[in-house]
Amino acid sequence: MADKTKILIDCDPGHDDAVAILFAARQLDLLAITTVHGNNTVENTTRNALSVLALAGLDVPVAQGLADPLAMARISVAAMHGKSGLDGATLPEPVRKPIAAHAIDVIIETASKHRGELVVALVGPQTNFAAALAREPKLAQWVREITIMGGSATLGNVTPAAEFNVYADPEAAAAVFACGAPIRMVGYNVTRLTGFDQGDIDRMKASGKRVAGTIADLMGFYLERQRRTFGLTVAPMHDVCAVVPYVAPDFIRYVETTVQVELAGTLTRGMTVCDMRTVRPGARSDVKVAGTPNARVALESQNRPLIDLVVDTLLTYS
Amino acid sequence: MADKTKILIDCDPGHDDAVAILFAARQLDLLAITTVHGNNTVENTTRNALSVLALAGLDVPVAQGLADPLAMARISVAAMHGKSGLDGATLPEPVRKPIAAHAIDVIIETASKHRGELVVALVGPQTNFAAALAREPKLAQWVREITIMGGSATLGNVTPAAEFNVYADPEAAAAVFACGAPIRMVGYNVTRLTGFDQGDIDRMKASGKRVAGTIADLMGFYLERQRRTFGLTVAPMHDVCAVVPYVAPDFIRYVETTVQVELAGTLTRGMTVCDMRTVRPGARSDVKVAGTPNARVALESQNRPLIDLVVDTLLTYS
Amino acid sequence: MADKTKILIDCDPGHDDAVAILFAARQLDLLAITTVHGNNTVENTTRNALSVLALAGLDVPVAQGLADPLAMARISVAAMHGKSGLDGATLPEPVRKPIAAHAIDVIIETASKHRGELVVALVGPQTNFAAALAREPKLAQWVREITIMGGSATLGNVTPAAEFNVYADPEAAAAVFACGAPIRMVGYNVTRLTGFDQGDIDRMKASGKRVAGTIADLMGFYLERQRRTFGLTVAPMHDVCAVVPYVAPDFIRYVETTVQVELAGTLTRGMTVCDMRTVRPGARSDVKVAGTPNARVALESQNRPLIDLVVDTLLTYS
Amino acid sequence: MADKTKILIDCDPGHDDAVAILFAARQLDLLAITTVHGNNTVENTTRNALSVLALAGLDVPVAQGLADPLAMARISVAAMHGKSGLDGATLPEPVRKPIAAHAIDVIIETASKHRGELVVALVGPQTNFAAALAREPKLAQWVREITIMGGSATLGNVTPAAEFNVYADPEAAAAVFACGAPIRMVGYNVTRLTGFDQGDIDRMKASGKRVAGTIADLMGFYLERQRRTFGLTVAPMHDVCAVVPYVAPDFIRYVETTVQVELAGTLTRGMTVCDMRTVRPGARSDVKVAGTPNARVALESQNRPLIDLVVDTLLTYS
Repeated sequence: MADKTKILIDCDPGHDDAVAILFAARQLDLLAITTVHGNNTVENTTRNALSVLALAGLDVPVAQGLADPLAMARISVAAMHGKSGLDGATLPEPVRKPIAAHAIDVIIETASKHRGELVVALVGPQTNFAAALAREPKLAQWVREITIMGGSATLGNVTPAAEFNVYADPEAAAAVFACGAPIRMVGYNVTRLTGFDQGDIDRMKASGKRVAGTIADLMGFYLERQRRTFGLTVAPMHDVCAVVPYVAPDFIRYVETTVQVELAGTLTRGMTVCDMRTVRPGARSDVKVAGTPNARVALESQNRPLIDLVVDTLLTYS
Repeated sequence: MADKTKILIDCDPGHDDAVAILFAARQLDLLAITTVHGNNTVENTTRNALSVLALAGLDVPVAQGLADPLAMARISVAAMHGKSGLDGATLPEPVRKPIAAHAIDVIIETASKHRGELVVALVGPQTNFAAALAREPKLAQWVREITIMGGSATLGNVTPAAEFNVYADPEAAAAVFACGAPIRMVGYNVTRLTGFDQGDIDRMKASGKRVAGTIADLMGFYLERQRRTFGLTVAPMHDVCAVVPYVAPDFIRYVETTVQVELAGTLTRGMTVCDMRTVRPGARSDVKVAGTPNARVALESQNRPLIDLVVDTLLTYS
Repeated sequence: MADKTKILIDCDPGHDDAVAILFAARQLDLLAITTVHGNNTVENTTRNALSVLALAGLDVPVAQGLADPLAMARISVAAMHGKSGLDGATLPEPVRKPIAAHAIDVIIETASKHRGELVVALVGPQTNFAAALAREPKLAQWVREITIMGGSATLGNVTPAAEFNVYADPEAAAAVFACGAPIRMVGYNVTRLTGFDQGDIDRMKASGKRVAGTIADLMGFYLERQRRTFGLTVAPMHDVCAVVPYVAPDFIRYVETTVQVELAGTLTRGMTVCDMRTVRPGARSDVKVAGTPNARVALESQNRPLIDLVVDTLLTYS
Repeated sequence: MADKTKILIDCDPGHDDAVAILFAARQLDLLAITTVHGNNTVENTTRNALSVLALAGLDVPVAQGLADPLAMARISVAAMHGKSGLDGATLPEPVRKPIAAHAIDVIIETASKHRGELVVALVGPQTNFAAALAREPKLAQWVREITIMGGSATLGNVTPAAEFNVYADPEAAAAVFACGAPIRMVGYNVTRLTGFDQGDIDRMKASGKRVAGTIADLMGFYLERQRRTFGLTVAPMHDVCAVVPYVAPDFIRYVETTVQVELAGTLTRGMTVCDMRTVRPGARSDVKVAGTPNARVALESQNRPLIDLVVDTLLTYS
């Protein structure tokens, strides 16, 4: 396992979170999972993470994290993921419990132990990592990279301007984007168009494999919700898009730019304001030019090979 | 002239404003020009409008309007249009003066006289029209349509999120977008990619015609500024894009949606928040669904035929 | 009438507006009344102004003004002033109509004619004056002073932080406070404690005079509303407090300071942020020191002599 | 020590913090001190806390806390407290080190151990407590009361609307005020007028006692700064005002009301919006009535007996 990327996934499962966990467990060196409020309460997202591990017979430590955003009341979006946060199939009961340590400590300790090596995937609201940064500011120097499923370079989903994971805790997101660590942002502009279609679901279902079959059931539920609400014809695999690049780096195209989080807007709170203007350095201009880039922002993905890789990986489970 | 669309242009010339005026004067029934602060002071934009008319030997009434935004101090962007607001060629001195009537009254009276028939093109900050709406709320019912060059469905120019004409008076823009009249918004997302390239400029220069030659000089200056600042290879013809559809309706593609102006954001003030999500009506969803559409928002243009039409029109002048 | 202060009252009657009109008509040179949305629709506030004049047999030109705030939808506060905007007594039908000219033009023309002499009393939302400033920026130099009933140096009434007249059109208020003219702000912090008590009402009622008796009926209604809602034991004479100083300058104490209007706050939109800190000029400090004062802000009033003067004045009517 | 109030002080010494520590150590059961960024860096405020303990020969555990606000960059106000955060006298070197445990854990553990008994005094920015609440939401139920020196019911100091401790981390303050625990807020409106005058300083200096003499030197420095900047004639003892009520409950008068923190305002960010309106419950009104009170807000103090108690207490030290 020497040359696999070491990764910690901070998540709020969530349908697409489940796929991200299963993908990372097979393809990368998944050191730990930490959970956070978001698609559901942190108690439910923790249970869901443990059930996904039980389904696949995996043994990865799960540490529960923060139940609420840093500086506001929790919002809820039950409809998209159903009442449990993971409706659509009966998952097995968890066979393990969360470890005693708090998510914040697990993030800090894992990053400290593997300095310069750890990728932290933030695929739920960024509350845990922001709190960990407050607790241990050196964390930003210790991580190799933060990869974020969240925000958007164009349209939002919860509001016209804001994507859910950032909208769910804009102050946390602001702290993360300002922390100075290398950041990869794979936002809703890309992930909404990257997902399983009915053919993918059918292929997993037809495989006769237990894990892939259960995922197929989950995704059938999720695809139907996305179809009804947004008119999409794929079940977007938001979260796994932030993980795939550590296996297949060429499926997503990026631009290096500045990303800031709007905290104050009436219509735009929680928007990731990405400077997509092409302003020449040193141009004589009254335009307020973007500062030093703080993130690589995903612009587009190659949906088919990316999703094929994900499905193929899921089919390696029994 | 019976079947030509009646139009009033409210503008802040400005390079691309000049082209919009010349285009409308040839192709439509241009009833009046009103001027506003924006690319330069209202005194200079008024003089520039009169000089453009002098250049082309046109006789259209010009009424000066508001010098400042409704509720904030004036911003300036001299660099893009040069010191005069129309640098790059020596325009003739105006041969006429502005009429005595105020722009606000001209807008109200023209709309009242031609109820249901008048298109009002707002191609500068929307201050005049917002003030006219305050003065005469029935204005919104009297106009056939408002066509706006301003805002953006994606990126901004002055800031990452905001386009200049809306950023220059967000409160005015908010009032206009909320007024209830039919609105066509041809924003920066489209207009930045719709413009003269060096070939177009050369073609006008080579024509030996006075008007087209002067415009070619102006545009050479403007193209150079755009190239240096934004790395663009066309001189965007922002303003004429809001006028062309009344001659050639098929060159631009739209979506009907809600547009609101962010007034409060720290990073997003002056952004036109367009709901670009495709949310099915009646979908069961926690997503805050867009309300009744208030605008047709331009998504993309066919640059070549649109610009050819503009150049051909300019070449009809001696 | 040579040495009486020339005054124009811009108002939204409203109980306390009625008293301000009657006071100004007797004690000052009341040149015109302009009306605005606020306590009720502009149609109703105009009718109410005309009825008050009819009651007192006064002949002052009334010009109707703007129906809506500059940049937002109109709010309503019917409960405090009742359904008509002036509930509690049957006022006579108007005997005159509003003049044809628009309030904006009347403000500009009156100020232009009496340069350096005219006090403009803004005792409703500041929409008309802000629109007039946009139309004629020299207005700020022409007026002798603007006296505002609006805002507060401490608590608000509509919200914990905002007073109604400013909250009803914060963008207009911001434009007025920034216009550069001398400004007297007599805010809710003072006016809420300055009003008729039951004794004053009884005294007017017992006088047997028609005008004072009708005002007593109106104020009985208003006092009851204030008592029920805010627990106040006086019927605050908000608006007249901004007019009295031109007759009796010593009843109110002021501080010269900066006043700015919060436009963006979630909890504080429409608050007049008055810098009440005593910061020594040139103090070496990290504190962001207030700039040049733009207003005289009322701190406290001598309630009894002020109200006695108002009652005595009302009793001069038959 | 059975009947003394158990207290934990979270602070950023700071001149007035030093007095609060010395007062609490003598008069209450001071279980721990936690430190936070604020008047200076957390490294300096920690060192200052340890030096104050060394000066008085006290042995109270000090745990270092967060170096930065939750969701924004740190601001600085060196001028008021000097370069070290505690200029004006030479304090002894610390004789102890901070304990190994983090402030967040110390807060949680102390509150957990003494459920229903612990008063937490927040006399710096509220960052530590907000982070502790995120980590352990039950904290709000465990504490007996939170007493805050911070915010203001009227004017601010850093800005016209905001007091320093809240302005320094508004998101943290918002989380604390919303946490549900009983809150006592002794804000700048009271504490600015409650302090040592030159006579108090002279009395301590003349006592010949080491601790009181050193405090007198510190306060001479601080009084001079306050005099130069705000024109005050007392050196405000901000922080101790939040501690004194647990010894002498009658020196400060309060109102129970709602307090919310403005996060979004351009002019008012960091303001504690206290609803000071007296709105009768059930009043029929369009006014947005305050909800359930979440804090006891100090309105005024009896300066002389309060300060005499503080000076007397300081004089008990050798």
